Formats: sequence, structure tokens, C-alpha cells
Amino acid sequence: MIEPFDDTYFMKKALHEAEAAYEKGEIPVGAVVVIDGRIIARGHNLTETLTDVTAHAEMQAITAAANFLGGKYLKGCTLYVTLEPCQMCAGALYWSQISRIVYGARDLERGCINLKTKLHPKTEIIGGVLEVEGASLLKRFFAGKRNLN
Amino acid sequence: MIEPFDDTYFMKKALHEAEAAYEKGEIPVGAVVVIDGRIIARGHNLTETLTDVTAHAEMQAITAAANFLGGKYLKGCTLYVTLEPCQMCAGALYWSQISRIVYGARDLERGCINLKTKLHPKTEIIGGVLEVEGASLLKRFFAGKRNLN
Repeated sequence: MIEPFDDTYFMKKALHEAEAAYEKGEIPVGAVVVIDGRIIARGHNLTETLTDVTAHAEMQAITAAANFLGGKYLKGCTLYVTLEPCQMCAGALYWSQISRIVYGARDLERGCINLKTKLHPKTEIIGGVLEVEGASLLKRFFAGKRNLN
Repeated sequence: MIEPFDDTYFMKKALHEAEAAYEKGEIPVGAVVVIDGRIIARGHNLTETLTDVTAHAEMQAITAAANFLGGKYLKGCTLYVTLEPCQMCAGALYWSQISRIVYGARDLERGCINLKTKLHPKTEIIGGVLEVEGASLLKRFFAGKRNLN
């Protein structure tokens, strides 16, 4: 059966990125940017590897997508990310004027929804796509960390 | 007369960075990061040059400071920036746990204060240092842009 190019399909690709972060000992969050059914950028959290708090999956995907497009605005693009974006990433998405944000798991404490980060008026945001998978990878990561301490 | 290493002194250095952005046709915002009276990172807005909405002065200064320190947290550091940080940059500063943010001009529409971006509880923020100089450089830039159209 041919897999349709829907939100679940692309979120699986973002989850692959999150798994790549997990393998590196990074908080497992992954992202892809899609335009016209095509992935043009991928990213996963690299804050530890790069010792840089700005190296979130979304930030790298935004930069890579703009690089691919040759322009800084991501109109017509969708960002898929396994965890609800934080203030920094939502702030970057605001500047990018991206058309859609699709996230997996909610982040009640540090996510942009409860912290009321302003998105561009043309940006649609939806959540809950493969949220169990996104959240369980994070839980597994933090459980592993606790066992090390 | 020896110039004291106070907030005005370091904001002048941030203004030099903003002028460097101006010379490149970038919205003129500049930043430096200081620890123990020493500048450890500089940055200026490069969003056009890099075609990247994430390339704000503060983001580059945060990354460069962490690189200098060899750790991702900027505890004990002060960021000087000629314009009040936006949501993205304030969100990055939240993650960095920086001790102080000193900005020049207010940004009533897109700045972190009116948009209520959450800062780290240990971060102090003050504004208005050389605000006239920071704002006038921005005004000159946008006036020049209008004359080109």
C-alpha cells in the first residue's frame, strides 16, 4: 500500500530526526520542513553537541529551509516538529512567516501556547500528530538520564 | 580621561556592531556579550546577508559567547544590545540563563516586553542605555530605505 503524503507521514520523518538526536544523547526533538509535498530541510536538537542553546531542531530546520529556497521567508511551507515549539523557535517561526506548524506532543511548561508567543497572523498551528510517539521518546530519554544519576 | 567600563561603554561597542550592520544594508542592530568586564562575543544583524530570519545580532552573540566559554549557559554574562530583543532572541536568552540584559531602544511592537516573552527568573533586564543613538541609527536606516523606493 502506498503511504499517503499526509501530516502523519511527515511527522514520522520528524520522529526519525528525533531518534537521531536521542542516539547522540540529545533531548530527542526532530523537525522537517515541507513545501509542495517535498521535504526541503531536516533538523534535530544539537544543543549539547554544539554547546549552544539556540541549536533546537526547529532553528536548524528554518535556517536549512531558507538556504534551500534562497529566501528567508517560508511562505507555503509546513514545519513538522515532534514537540510543541518553545518561545525562541516560535519567535523564529513568526519572523519566517511560515504557513503551517504541525507539532506532536504538547509542552505545557515551556511551549509557545501557554507562554502565548505571538505567531504570524498567516500561520496556522495544529498539534497532536503522533503525540504519543513524540512524548514517549522524550520520556524514555529522561528516564534513562535519571537512571544514570 | 580613562573611560570607565560601565553599561554606556559596552553599549557603545554594541552600537559599533549596529553600524557594521548598517554599512551592509542590514537593519542596524548590534550586540556584545560581556563577562567580568571583558567582551567575549560580538554580533550584528545579518538576516539579509545570510537570508536567515534567525541571524539576529543577539543570536549570533549568544552562540559566540557559548563557544568562547565552552558551555552553553551564560551565567555571569551581560548582553548589551542596541534594540530591545524580540521574542526569538528573548527566548534564546531564557534558555541561556544569562544574568543581565541591557538594551538601548524600546521595540513597542515586536519587543519581548510588550509581547511578554518569559525570561529566566535569574535574568535582570534594563533598558534605555544610549537609546537615542540606537533608535536614530534605525530611523536613519528606514528613512534611507524609503528614499530608495
